[in-house]
Amino acid sequence: MDNQTLLYLIPASGVLALIYSVLTSGWVRRQDEGDDRMKGIAGSIARGAMAFLSAEYKILGIFVVAVAILLAGTADDTSSSPMVALSFVLGAVCSGLAGFIGMRVATLANVRTAAAARSGLPGALTVAFRGGSVMGMSVVGLALLGLGTLFTYYLSSFGIDVNSSTPNSATLTRVINVLAGFSMGASSIALFARVGGGIYTKAADVGADLVGKVEAGIPEDHFLNPATIADNVGDNVGDVAGMGADLFESYVGAILGAMILGAVAVSGSVQAVMIPLVIAAVGIVVSIVGTSFVRTKEGGNLQLALDGGMFGAAAIMIPLSYFIIDHFVQSAQTAGTPISFEAGESVSTVALMGAIVIGLVCGVAIGLVTGFYCSKNKRPVDSIVEQSQTGPATNIIAGIGVGFESTAVPIALICLAIFVANYFAGLYGVALAALGMLSTTGIQLAVDAYGPISDNAGGIAEMSGLPPQVRERTDNLDAVGNTTAAIGKGFAIASAALAALSLFAAYRQIAIKPGESLVLTDPEVLVGILFGGMLPFVFSAMAMKAVGDAAMDMITEVRRQFRDIPVLRAALQLVAKAEEEERVLTAEEDAQVQAAGKKAEVERCVEISTQASIRRMIQPGLLAMIAPVVVGFWSPHALGGMLAGTLCSGVMLAIFMSNAGGAWDNAKKQVEDQTKSREDNTGKGSERHKAAVIGDTVGDPFKDTAGPSLNILIKLMTIVAVVIAPLIR
Amino acid sequence: MDNQTLLYLIPASGVLALIYSVLTSGWVRRQDEGDDRMKGIAGSIARGAMAFLSAEYKILGIFVVAVAILLAGTADDTSSSPMVALSFVLGAVCSGLAGFIGMRVATLANVRTAAAARSGLPGALTVAFRGGSVMGMSVVGLALLGLGTLFTYYLSSFGIDVNSSTPNSATLTRVINVLAGFSMGASSIALFARVGGGIYTKAADVGADLVGKVEAGIPEDHFLNPATIADNVGDNVGDVAGMGADLFESYVGAILGAMILGAVAVSGSVQAVMIPLVIAAVGIVVSIVGTSFVRTKEGGNLQLALDGGMFGAAAIMIPLSYFIIDHFVQSAQTAGTPISFEAGESVSTVALMGAIVIGLVCGVAIGLVTGFYCSKNKRPVDSIVEQSQTGPATNIIAGIGVGFESTAVPIALICLAIFVANYFAGLYGVALAALGMLSTTGIQLAVDAYGPISDNAGGIAEMSGLPPQVRERTDNLDAVGNTTAAIGKGFAIASAALAALSLFAAYRQIAIKPGESLVLTDPEVLVGILFGGMLPFVFSAMAMKAVGDAAMDMITEVRRQFRDIPVLRAALQLVAKAEEEERVLTAEEDAQVQAAGKKAEVERCVEISTQASIRRMIQPGLLAMIAPVVVGFWSPHALGGMLAGTLCSGVMLAIFMSNAGGAWDNAKKQVEDQTKSREDNTGKGSERHKAAVIGDTVGDPFKDTAGPSLNILIKLMTIVAVVIAPLIR
Repeated sequence: MDNQTLLYLIPASGVLALIYSVLTSGWVRRQDEGDDRMKGIAGSIARGAMAFLSAEYKILGIFVVAVAILLAGTADDTSSSPMVALSFVLGAVCSGLAGFIGMRVATLANVRTAAAARSGLPGALTVAFRGGSVMGMSVVGLALLGLGTLFTYYLSSFGIDVNSSTPNSATLTRVINVLAGFSMGASSIALFARVGGGIYTKAADVGADLVGKVEAGIPEDHFLNPATIADNVGDNVGDVAGMGADLFESYVGAILGAMILGAVAVSGSVQAVMIPLVIAAVGIVVSIVGTSFVRTKEGGNLQLALDGGMFGAAAIMIPLSYFIIDHFVQSAQTAGTPISFEAGESVSTVALMGAIVIGLVCGVAIGLVTGFYCSKNKRPVDSIVEQSQTGPATNIIAGIGVGFESTAVPIALICLAIFVANYFAGLYGVALAALGMLSTTGIQLAVDAYGPISDNAGGIAEMSGLPPQVRERTDNLDAVGNTTAAIGKGFAIASAALAALSLFAAYRQIAIKPGESLVLTDPEVLVGILFGGMLPFVFSAMAMKAVGDAAMDMITEVRRQFRDIPVLRAALQLVAKAEEEERVLTAEEDAQVQAAGKKAEVERCVEISTQASIRRMIQPGLLAMIAPVVVGFWSPHALGGMLAGTLCSGVMLAIFMSNAGGAWDNAKKQVEDQTKSREDNTGKGSERHKAAVIGDTVGDPFKDTAGPSLNILIKLMTIVAVVIAPLIR
Repeated sequence: MDNQTLLYLIPASGVLALIYSVLTSGWVRRQDEGDDRMKGIAGSIARGAMAFLSAEYKILGIFVVAVAILLAGTADDTSSSPMVALSFVLGAVCSGLAGFIGMRVATLANVRTAAAARSGLPGALTVAFRGGSVMGMSVVGLALLGLGTLFTYYLSSFGIDVNSSTPNSATLTRVINVLAGFSMGASSIALFARVGGGIYTKAADVGADLVGKVEAGIPEDHFLNPATIADNVGDNVGDVAGMGADLFESYVGAILGAMILGAVAVSGSVQAVMIPLVIAAVGIVVSIVGTSFVRTKEGGNLQLALDGGMFGAAAIMIPLSYFIIDHFVQSAQTAGTPISFEAGESVSTVALMGAIVIGLVCGVAIGLVTGFYCSKNKRPVDSIVEQSQTGPATNIIAGIGVGFESTAVPIALICLAIFVANYFAGLYGVALAALGMLSTTGIQLAVDAYGPISDNAGGIAEMSGLPPQVRERTDNLDAVGNTTAAIGKGFAIASAALAALSLFAAYRQIAIKPGESLVLTDPEVLVGILFGGMLPFVFSAMAMKAVGDAAMDMITEVRRQFRDIPVLRAALQLVAKAEEEERVLTAEEDAQVQAAGKKAEVERCVEISTQASIRRMIQPGLLAMIAPVVVGFWSPHALGGMLAGTLCSGVMLAIFMSNAGGAWDNAKKQVEDQTKSREDNTGKGSERHKAAVIGDTVGDPFKDTAGPSLNILIKLMTIVAVVIAPLIR
């Protein structure tokens, strides 16, 4: 096939993924959604989630239009600014759309998963996973449809023929620089979605847990707790929509980083630019095939089903990548312009595959290490559990220690990946290593999104009073996704660092005049490094404070309801007493509690979370957008330093916060698992448990708000730098 | 005066400071040490402190000998390795000696301050401050005596005549490179002392507070609590000996950084090297004069007295620095070799003074910002107090947010200082900016050490049952040092960053071949940056875990004693009840409590802290020493990146941890201040207070163990790199 034909296949693969999404989403919609009470609760969650999204998108719409006008109006040497603006708007719209579709189907799938769980595990697994796969395929589909269409359009606008073997490398770089606006749009929406969603979900979660579980002594997700619906809405807006936008951004960033570095090849640049696009396109098909591996029988191994899908896809992808790379390496050779980044040294298929494989290996290893630090009954979590015995203070100190320590091995692995990939194929190799991890994003994200859907199904089961075995089944579903999700997290961290690095290298190529370089001992670079190193801390401070403030609003509201609504108060005492005595409620008591539940003012809690999160996502988002512009116009060298500083401290903080949060979470669960050996008073309700709950609460904004946002922050700042690079040179 | 004469004045000024120390220490020793009970308690504290120091120095002795043998045995191009080893040993010994002398006199001064506080404030102030000034003068005296003597000796060994205007610049650089061993010795002892002392003091503090105040409900520093003596010992080994070694290291590092950068001057290098030494020598005399300003009358303003000493010294120092600099600038000009770092561009007196002044201004500003973030009734601490209402989790989240946020302005100010100082006089200017802040270290450290002495005096007053007004007076003494101490902290942070930067520039000069440079986009440099950025996190993890583990040992021991010693248990209940009812004990009750106090097994707690801290200081200390050596021998470029990465994330973490810890501390105090308005149940003993105490406890290892150690870590790694630079080039 010639390059032009291959180029058309890229948006086509995107369309294929979207068709899969539509069909699967229709299938999910046709499943049984359970009894009226379940429908009612699911309806509240869906309405709350949509209310948040529409409030959020209104603000983001204004933001996107404003930035687009700025971008379009910026006079530039090649007057291609309107194209940058177009890319930006499309990137933002696709990202928002992916989040919307994912969340829409997740709020359909949660209740249907709960309904299916009434009759058994395999059915529930299928519903939850298919719900997740709609999200996964929407993300990759919209990404390739957008990128592929724009790229084809810009190529023809700039008059580049990809079938010609020697296009102007500078013009090709310019095309991809214009295309970078797409990534910038995706990243900026992702940052707002992650931060906003993260604030929402954690404000609700912290509020619900602290007042409900700790103070009133009622179970998690109990319908008497008015913050519970907001908490479940939060799972959707944070873990589904936020994560969708996040992975959309990572995926686009990794593809684009490799494309830019491909464009600067001395020869064979067309082929080097096509490789990442075609790998991504084939990855979509493989992901769709992979989803069909995910199935199990009653009593079957769920873990194996999910792992089968993901590792199956990866296993197919490796040989296919080899063939794709080999095709382009050969075709470049045949055309007499072998892919080469240094004069005289052409790159071999094996070298490029080496870069991809080291990326995959390090990504999986980072995931396993992450899993180790966050898993129950492993040394790190055990140490937190042990320190919980002496109260919350030692629990917190231990958790922070575990989080700090957990940066060591992942960073060493990232360093190894950079070193080896660079050895094989220079910085283009580093970009390919990032891409390798994300080529099967479609199915990875399906597994990731499956988690919050199962979690939500559990919440609905609890709130609508389904029999305990239903909740047990959804808990089982939720638990098995964890290893796969941990590996996904490892990929997210490693690919973010590597993609940021390749975008950083691209920035250097475009912004720094030939003959100059970014010298570490240049005072402007040093000032940039220190200043850039500080930004992730300030950004995290904003996110943490936002969660703290919003959670406090929520706590005050729940306390007020528990205090001021007499029937609610009475019902709470009944439930807490029954919990204490480990018995179920009598029919009469149950009727009273049910009636009281209707008095809980759920909407006020949803409203508080929505308002708080929308208002507070703006400041950190703008910080990330404005800082590189201001510093860049002062000095491109300082901006170079700043990007390195932000990468350095941002990656550390991201790993620290995610892992500390995960470890605290599982330390709490480990303490709760020991409920049965209650005679030594160390299980649920004990002082040790209270300490563990406090640690978990502190960890919530770490792992679900600030931590994951930092990955986006790093890339957004770098992509903004790349987009403005021609202007500040 | 010719340069040779000036050179002799440098060790002479060191001797002068030591004479001051001996005389003042004799004066302190002659003061009244109070009644037998006070003597007994003070004796226990002094014995505990000495037991710790001797255990610590035994280990450090082995370490120093081992490193010295390694250094001496390393074959090197100029075969000056034995000199490096000599410098290293002397630096280590002087640092250890400064810590020992300071702590010896502090444990004499604490009880005498308490005794003097029985009759009034002015006497107590004088005793505490003179005790602190012994420490201050020992530090600067030993530093200049050591540095001055070695420098003179090495100059003659290498055959350099400082009166000649054109010595060989490469040989001069070599001399100072050999002298850098002194700084390495000082820094390595400082790191161990800070980490070991920090673990000790916080294990004891956390243990004493959690079980005593929170669980048993007895007041802080109560003699029934067996961990109280260990807590007071900890104040001495951590805050006095640890801080002394720390400032010894900073002081030597700042002088040496400026000397190295002076040596690489194109012309006038002798003068550029002499400037920092002579400024430091004059600074000693000025500091001694400054101590005489610190006096007050009964009812006088204590704050004014301390500020008078410190700012008075600084005010004298500025014009004197001008004259010193002008002398050397003129003499270089007269000799026909004006001080110049770039061919053809000579540096003026005004430019060099500009660098010093911007350093001072930014240092003071950072101190004020630090003060703002850590002071009661200011926005940051208020926000933590407010969040304490909803429990420990929100308190912790708020504190971490405040700490993260507090990095912003100090880093911006450090960036400003680097930029301006570099504008005036290149990287030599940056080094002078660091030196300017530390030129009056003698009196700054006196004020710093005065704080823990007053604190200890308060502890002794409490434990020996002196009348409440004595404790009030010592609390007053303790409180007034705070602003001055905050500014000292600002100086410590800013000077650490600037000194590390100048040592980093020196490393680049020595380790990187001419014609090459440290390029930010070089993969080896990038790998170095990421790896280096990770080290402060892992180092902090080790320190935090050490504190957590040691504190848990302590908590378990105190709980055991409270449970298993019946008379102690009975007495505790009496005291807690009296506290609750806000009344004093009856004579009969008091007798019972007194008798029970003798049963508390104090020595076991001292033993636990000592063992735990010595054992656990080794691992983080070795990490800092070994990492640069291993990476450096792999690639000098990667080591360059690593130093930048460690500087970047280390400075952020240091500021974050110090300020978060300080803010939590004062949030707790602010809640306690509100005790009187107890009707709303928000003061001492309330849930809000418990939350604030937990925050304070988490902050303890932040601000007293990991935070201050990071400043040393950054410089130690850089100085190790400088020392090994000729070997890895």
